[in-house]
Amino acid sequence: MLKLNLTNLSSISPKHGLSTTEIDRHKDKIAEYLEKIKARKLGFYDLVDDKETVAKVQKFADEKKDQYEHIIVFGIGGSSLGTICLQQSLTHLYKEKKLHVIDNIDPIMLKELEDVIELPKTLFIIVTKSGGTPETLSEYFYIRKKCDEKGLDPKEHFVFITDPTKGLLREISIEEGIPTFEIPENVGGRFSVLTPVGLLPAALMGLDIKALLDGARTQRDLFLSESKNPAFTLATIQYLLDQKGKQMTVLMPYAQKLIRLADWYRQLLAESIGKKLDNEGNEIFSGLTPINALGVTDQHSQSQLYNEGPNDKFFIFIAVEDFGADMEIPNLKPMSPSVNFLQNVSFKKLMHTEQKGTEQALTKNDRPNITITVDSVSENALGQLFMLFEAKVAFLGEFYNIDAFDQPGVELSKNLTKELLLKS
Amino acid sequence: MLKLNLTNLSSISPKHGLSTTEIDRHKDKIAEYLEKIKARKLGFYDLVDDKETVAKVQKFADEKKDQYEHIIVFGIGGSSLGTICLQQSLTHLYKEKKLHVIDNIDPIMLKELEDVIELPKTLFIIVTKSGGTPETLSEYFYIRKKCDEKGLDPKEHFVFITDPTKGLLREISIEEGIPTFEIPENVGGRFSVLTPVGLLPAALMGLDIKALLDGARTQRDLFLSESKNPAFTLATIQYLLDQKGKQMTVLMPYAQKLIRLADWYRQLLAESIGKKLDNEGNEIFSGLTPINALGVTDQHSQSQLYNEGPNDKFFIFIAVEDFGADMEIPNLKPMSPSVNFLQNVSFKKLMHTEQKGTEQALTKNDRPNITITVDSVSENALGQLFMLFEAKVAFLGEFYNIDAFDQPGVELSKNLTKELLLKS
Repeated sequence: MLKLNLTNLSSISPKHGLSTTEIDRHKDKIAEYLEKIKARKLGFYDLVDDKETVAKVQKFADEKKDQYEHIIVFGIGGSSLGTICLQQSLTHLYKEKKLHVIDNIDPIMLKELEDVIELPKTLFIIVTKSGGTPETLSEYFYIRKKCDEKGLDPKEHFVFITDPTKGLLREISIEEGIPTFEIPENVGGRFSVLTPVGLLPAALMGLDIKALLDGARTQRDLFLSESKNPAFTLATIQYLLDQKGKQMTVLMPYAQKLIRLADWYRQLLAESIGKKLDNEGNEIFSGLTPINALGVTDQHSQSQLYNEGPNDKFFIFIAVEDFGADMEIPNLKPMSPSVNFLQNVSFKKLMHTEQKGTEQALTKNDRPNITITVDSVSENALGQLFMLFEAKVAFLGEFYNIDAFDQPGVELSKNLTKELLLKS
Repeated sequence: MLKLNLTNLSSISPKHGLSTTEIDRHKDKIAEYLEKIKARKLGFYDLVDDKETVAKVQKFADEKKDQYEHIIVFGIGGSSLGTICLQQSLTHLYKEKKLHVIDNIDPIMLKELEDVIELPKTLFIIVTKSGGTPETLSEYFYIRKKCDEKGLDPKEHFVFITDPTKGLLREISIEEGIPTFEIPENVGGRFSVLTPVGLLPAALMGLDIKALLDGARTQRDLFLSESKNPAFTLATIQYLLDQKGKQMTVLMPYAQKLIRLADWYRQLLAESIGKKLDNEGNEIFSGLTPINALGVTDQHSQSQLYNEGPNDKFFIFIAVEDFGADMEIPNLKPMSPSVNFLQNVSFKKLMHTEQKGTEQALTKNDRPNITITVDSVSENALGQLFMLFEAKVAFLGEFYNIDAFDQPGVELSKNLTKELLLKS
């Protein structure tokens, strides 16, 4: 089970940190906030109990997995970020990939994709919650036409993941009998990684989706608990630190494979909390800016700013106990002052120690930071992290008295784009 | 030549935007700041004239390019971010890669790298400006020992890129005669992409390094000009917007291949401007937080926050006129309201129009934004962008009255790491 370490929050000055008392003072809100969240009738935390969907996804994956040379996911935002994270976290870093996620409409991306795939040997997964995302549908139309021209059976080369009843993709699915998985109506895009949106690509990559949901279930149970509730604790900290001028949140895993977790989290935090209006319609312009970082790599890119720049950030480190490999560093120049401290040090130990060094430096520089530790980069750990962060964001919405589950601010640019296209 | 479009700055309210008069008011500082920058005796803008290095790098690459199945770069921060950006920008997105950059010490990364390479068929490029970066040296020691055990000639399997005279890597180079390229002493890591640090891997990937330097030269000449100086204009805008509460800078290219440019820029801006002390030793805690984003992808992840959250960001879009491919979008459902605006639209047009829609929405929401347009994602364009941003950061340092070329704030965590290792 993942562990939170909050001690550095209380070791820094009260101006920038938080005492246990300050955090605990809010505990009596758990019950109230849980009730409010439940009243929103959301589905994201029930997904972990949906054994039927898991079985259906697994069956499909088992049947199809070896039939194709390539699997292409067309999706954007919540339809792609979870899958990208799962692939980066849980598959080999350098072996050639069978599955590619296309999350942009840059024509060179599509053209170069076509260079490496053969349509008769490819399965396309089309993912859009609303069923009407223009970017995703454009790509679908483009590839669908090519498949039709080759006389390929769309039922063999396409799978849809979309709303159970609404939207253009659902219409096409009904018309043509294309295999289709559901995103429950009450689960928003950025909370959909544990629906078929993430589960189907994961299963097709050979990942253990049951373990993913087991991990998520562990955190879901804690989320619904009124006593020990790490998601609530995290939300409290994040909210209180915003009051102390920390509008930016750096998520910095110390594990190469978790590099894309921070991208998934970026959407979750940014879209959920960035809101002009509160629940009563007052203008509040709330928002926490998520920043993705990676240890140790970004020590050589961002640490200078983090330590010496404005004290405007809250740092969440993710530590991994077992990286899945470890090797001794053979010190070939033990007398050199550059490396004389590398005696009996393995890569794992160096990684862990650099993380501690970074945490201690930030703490000495009065910068608030916490650490979440997971055993390993596994399906279970990812499931826990997904659910922990989703639950945290749900609580945060209540702290800010906003709707953390809509995204009204993206409509304007969508409408402007449509107008520009219709005028042109 | 790249173009700046600043019109959206003056179309928003004076509280959040900038009039042309406000920007032009600072023009008389160009000469003074240029003189100060020149007094620092930096090398980054002279690199474009170093024909000798280019010839040496090109010769080495031509000789070696086809000798190896894999080329591995070990480097971190300024020793890797430029190369990663060049590879992502200018090579095929999906064809299997011959060159890999290892910029972390996670043991699973090394282990999985070993799964796919054969040492006798691999060239290792070891990059560290100081010659003493412990992460990079650890990896070098590890692989070097393995190569030695296999009886491989280090002169055939290693190339070093480091300081001309100082550091452990230089010592080893002299002792063992390993081929070594120089990073000029007066060019810092984050300004080193146009030294062999970026040039050698680029040439080995078959990129046109002369065109890269040609592009950089175009911007270098403008940087040294007292009349039309885009780098100075950008620095002025960035500095004035900081005064208006925009501590975050979002760099958002609308081109899949430029996704890693924002990572390179992140180090440049963060390390250069994030400073506790000014030139007189006063505590100022200056700093601009760079945020990487990608169009259109991050419209579905970050736009909500950008449009409705706190008005605390400055947006730099990068537009690309020609993506290197374009295809019509065949609208298979022209009557559907989800996509009925996609008539005679190509992917390029959709990409460009979504960018305009995003810019217009931010402008309507009173958020300061500018656009830099390049003809295509080419060596020349990359060279221009690298130099433009480096020159901008040099000017910014003078605006803030800080040393934009050091990084004292990273020492503390380095020292703490060493202490922890020695104690353990």
